[in-house]
Amino acid sequence: MPSRNRLKYLASLSKKKQRKNEGKFIVEGVRAVYEGLNSDYVCEEVFIDAEHSGKVNDLIELSESKEIPVTLASAEEIKKIADTKSPQSVAALFRIKSNFNLSEGKFIVALDDVADPGNLGTIIRTCDWFGVENILVSSNSVDLFNPKVIRSTMGSIFHINFEIAADLSLKLHELKSNGYKILAADMSGKSVKDVGKIESKVALVLGSEAFGVSTEVMKTADFAVSIPGNGKAESLNVAVAGAILIYELFGEK
Amino acid sequence: MPSRNRLKYLASLSKKKQRKNEGKFIVEGVRAVYEGLNSDYVCEEVFIDAEHSGKVNDLIELSESKEIPVTLASAEEIKKIADTKSPQSVAALFRIKSNFNLSEGKFIVALDDVADPGNLGTIIRTCDWFGVENILVSSNSVDLFNPKVIRSTMGSIFHINFEIAADLSLKLHELKSNGYKILAADMSGKSVKDVGKIESKVALVLGSEAFGVSTEVMKTADFAVSIPGNGKAESLNVAVAGAILIYELFGEK
Repeated sequence: MPSRNRLKYLASLSKKKQRKNEGKFIVEGVRAVYEGLNSDYVCEEVFIDAEHSGKVNDLIELSESKEIPVTLASAEEIKKIADTKSPQSVAALFRIKSNFNLSEGKFIVALDDVADPGNLGTIIRTCDWFGVENILVSSNSVDLFNPKVIRSTMGSIFHINFEIAADLSLKLHELKSNGYKILAADMSGKSVKDVGKIESKVALVLGSEAFGVSTEVMKTADFAVSIPGNGKAESLNVAVAGAILIYELFGEK
Repeated sequence: MPSRNRLKYLASLSKKKQRKNEGKFIVEGVRAVYEGLNSDYVCEEVFIDAEHSGKVNDLIELSESKEIPVTLASAEEIKKIADTKSPQSVAALFRIKSNFNLSEGKFIVALDDVADPGNLGTIIRTCDWFGVENILVSSNSVDLFNPKVIRSTMGSIFHINFEIAADLSLKLHELKSNGYKILAADMSGKSVKDVGKIESKVALVLGSEAFGVSTEVMKTADFAVSIPGNGKAESLNVAVAGAILIYELFGEK
């Protein structure tokens, strides 16, 4: 069982500042922890609900084969560690990677100050579904390792290459001179139905929930792209708009 | 200013049981309240942050022209009324409609026990963007008037016809004999890219986050439909999958 102090330390990682200082984050749930163990992230400890340890034998074996300590804990302790209300039988402590870099890849999704953790996590999961391996995140976006982000990614956090951009426009300019076309999601843009096939590499920029793509970032775009709709809603949720654009631009033809 | 008892009453509407007993719900935010005032829902009272009353003159005028009482409140009081952490300058008390019915319409989205309020609200907003006016909700889905659902709809709750189905399969059978084709979202289904144009009316069924479309409901489907992806994620978020299917099946060609 984890000590009282250890529990307090693990629970403190729900705070961004503490995650940054310690360079660590918590992952919950069998599937997500499994994905983490099979990734190039370093796992430091796995916590298993003592009452469910039978159901997660594979995970215990995998951890032990990688010489990662497995600690039994109560359901209540797992909840505290994972900062969640829903019962989870597994949580784990991972190290944040010390440097992030985009890989060579045809498609990049760039996020200009996305603020909601559920939206960020869902966008990561969607990219992972469609095989988009690179996400560029402006440094004012919600923290990648926020527990709600991690939860919404359903393990996809471990499959994506991230880069945090202190100056997103500058980074997009670089990508542009590297052969990428920059498309920005904006309701005033060209309908995604009319974009047609793009032969070059593409970076798709999604904006913040409240303000969309910023003026500065929009200046770097080759063109803006929109989703036609004939209902009464003023806009789409950013994770939804992003998903439709990724499906249409980057999905199988 | 609302009395202490009145505040307590309004805050209690964040609970499903209380909403059901009272037949009332709370809406927050200028845009959403404005949509509500212009809908066929009955608004009983509008609450305005006294410090922001200048910025919402139009809303005050609209309320007064409809003889709806406008009450000034503090920012703290509005937060309590709206069950939210984020500051809002406006909240309002609406009556839940006593009966819901789908209208004649080519497209219906049917939800089989969607549990997460953010997902339900986002699906409603997406339907409203694409002009899908009818949503059929299984009675085990999260409550339509849950504050997080309302918040995620961004006012679209007022634009959609809902029907709550105690027995979703039965209702889908009825729709079928009424000329609707029933499509169910399922990863084992036919790719949405291969569905082609459907001439008849269509009901698209989306399943629960944890279990997808239930076996019973799946039996009513003409066929299952999937979204092709070549990444590593195990599945898509239901609001994202729903959005892509709605875009592809019901959107402009």
